[in-house]
Amino acid sequence: MTENQGTERISRDRLVDFAARALEAAGMPRQDAAAGAPLVVEPDLNGADGHGIFRLPQYVRRIRAGGINTQPQIRVIREKAAMALVDGDNALGHLVVHRAAEAAIEKASEHGVGWAGVRNGNHAGAASTWARIPLEQGMIGLYLAVGSANHLPPWGGVDMLLSTNPLAVAIPALEEPPVILDMATTVAAYGKVKTALQRGEMMPEGWMIDREGKPLTDPRRAGEGFLLPIGGYKGYGLALIIGLLAGTLNGAAMGRDVIDFNADDVTATNTGQAVLAISPEAFGDAHGFRQQVDEVVRTMRGSARMPGVDRIRLPGEMSHAKRLDRLENGVPIPAPLLETLNVLAGELGIDGPA
Amino acid sequence: MTENQGTERISRDRLVDFAARALEAAGMPRQDAAAGAPLVVEPDLNGADGHGIFRLPQYVRRIRAGGINTQPQIRVIREKAAMALVDGDNALGHLVVHRAAEAAIEKASEHGVGWAGVRNGNHAGAASTWARIPLEQGMIGLYLAVGSANHLPPWGGVDMLLSTNPLAVAIPALEEPPVILDMATTVAAYGKVKTALQRGEMMPEGWMIDREGKPLTDPRRAGEGFLLPIGGYKGYGLALIIGLLAGTLNGAAMGRDVIDFNADDVTATNTGQAVLAISPEAFGDAHGFRQQVDEVVRTMRGSARMPGVDRIRLPGEMSHAKRLDRLENGVPIPAPLLETLNVLAGELGIDGPA
Repeated sequence: MTENQGTERISRDRLVDFAARALEAAGMPRQDAAAGAPLVVEPDLNGADGHGIFRLPQYVRRIRAGGINTQPQIRVIREKAAMALVDGDNALGHLVVHRAAEAAIEKASEHGVGWAGVRNGNHAGAASTWARIPLEQGMIGLYLAVGSANHLPPWGGVDMLLSTNPLAVAIPALEEPPVILDMATTVAAYGKVKTALQRGEMMPEGWMIDREGKPLTDPRRAGEGFLLPIGGYKGYGLALIIGLLAGTLNGAAMGRDVIDFNADDVTATNTGQAVLAISPEAFGDAHGFRQQVDEVVRTMRGSARMPGVDRIRLPGEMSHAKRLDRLENGVPIPAPLLETLNVLAGELGIDGPA
Repeated sequence: MTENQGTERISRDRLVDFAARALEAAGMPRQDAAAGAPLVVEPDLNGADGHGIFRLPQYVRRIRAGGINTQPQIRVIREKAAMALVDGDNALGHLVVHRAAEAAIEKASEHGVGWAGVRNGNHAGAASTWARIPLEQGMIGLYLAVGSANHLPPWGGVDMLLSTNPLAVAIPALEEPPVILDMATTVAAYGKVKTALQRGEMMPEGWMIDREGKPLTDPRRAGEGFLLPIGGYKGYGLALIIGLLAGTLNGAAMGRDVIDFNADDVTATNTGQAVLAISPEAFGDAHGFRQQVDEVVRTMRGSARMPGVDRIRLPGEMSHAKRLDRLENGVPIPAPLLETLNVLAGELGIDGPA
């Protein structure tokens, strides 16, 4: 979403307050709504605009349809020194993954490394939200998730059996912004296809193929083809492996069992995720490590550049700049989204966000 | 390498015996040579022909030049319940990563998950070798490494500051072959560029770009450009993150510090690697997990196919078939490689492999 005339800045606090009121009005206990709301809005701070408050109407729809459990018992059902398995009891996904991130951090602070898996979770917004949580403790965070709808066939196939299962990693630096990679395993996100369609533009080769495996460049034909995984069969392999680690290992849905969360508001999704926390302290001098990350960041940034490239960027650099700007100046909410949120407010009998 | 008239099949045992004799003749203690040889040959079983005995002459050259320590003290220098940091003391890389894999497995069998990092290691062959080791205990293995030469600039840059830092993950199935992903973070390996050159063929767009960022398709111009990371900036991000986790976190070389192991036989490389072992038992019923992996594998394989696709493959399926064939019928060694090994034997005053 680009900022234009129809875009209004709304402060993070207002958005969080609105999300909390909406979740409560939809049926969640006040305490859970208050805990979930900042996590729902977190992607908006980092520029992952399609995964933040943009999704709130969908979450509310699912809660009201009974597809999200508003009285869940989120519990650690298996545990060892280095791992935990969290059963989310079909709660709002954000509350479940947050519990997993806490468990991973707790393990890592005592034992150096902690891994926490999730079953019976739900869509939990942007991947980077969860890789970032260990950062607050000076730790490295890694997050894997089974996506909430299948968009990818296995390589050479035409049945959509895989989601664009994302990966996020966050690594703390000292003076530099943290290095944060947040990526789906496809070359282009589906949102970019929709944007090309709206603009009447063709897509470059490499974004999609049709059912014959030929390049598909006309976004009006998008329904006849598939997104391409990064690096071809490599991206397919990554999506598969992430699905096995974040889904199958946890007893969560993977492959044919994945419920399309965009099309179905009722069926429990049994979404699987995993959070890994690593404590640099366990490996030696944590301060020195962060200095070294600064050094690597500056080395990359200092590379000679190709013509037309104004700056070498590090993963997470742009979202960090957006975060600073949005915490200061508010989150840009385009007019159509604001309208959608106001309609939601009307349905729920609460005040809108602005 | 394709099998043709000039290719001879040599049994694994003969290759291991030859590698052990060569390493010992080069200066390694007999016990270390015997321990390292099967690990050096392991990639040949799995079809990673460019990373197995093909590399032996280079290892020997480095040992004789003093670039590998033949009297190392490989030690765990930091340890917690879930992690270990191994100092390889500049030993043969295979011995060091093997020690790390053992440590990761030991941690995982007790605590569910174990992570072991390496500093002061060396080139250790194919990534899948190390992800496979936890498999032998029914565990999931993950391996990250800093590559032994920089081939990639940061995205938008022209200074080669990153290696094609590989990732391997191995996941056990029950009746199906394990799912094993072993990938560099570039679209094409450099070996494929060399093959195109030898055959007088042009490369497809997407393998390389030149210093202006334009597609480079003539392999004779390869020296003027760079390999492309998978998914563009995503692959750059992956290479960077893997380097920070496998290198920087362990106090190993990363970025500008990486020694080009192809060009320099003397300088200690301080290569960094990391092995993660995950015990499915900790997460629940390990047998049931493996059944579920079978189920996912069969679901993918059963997908309807694009025209011209004879079979949907799973990552690791082809290397598994090669492994069975090569254990039974020997490893195909092309005539030029056999000649190279015989020359090496002559230099070391030992018998050749065949």
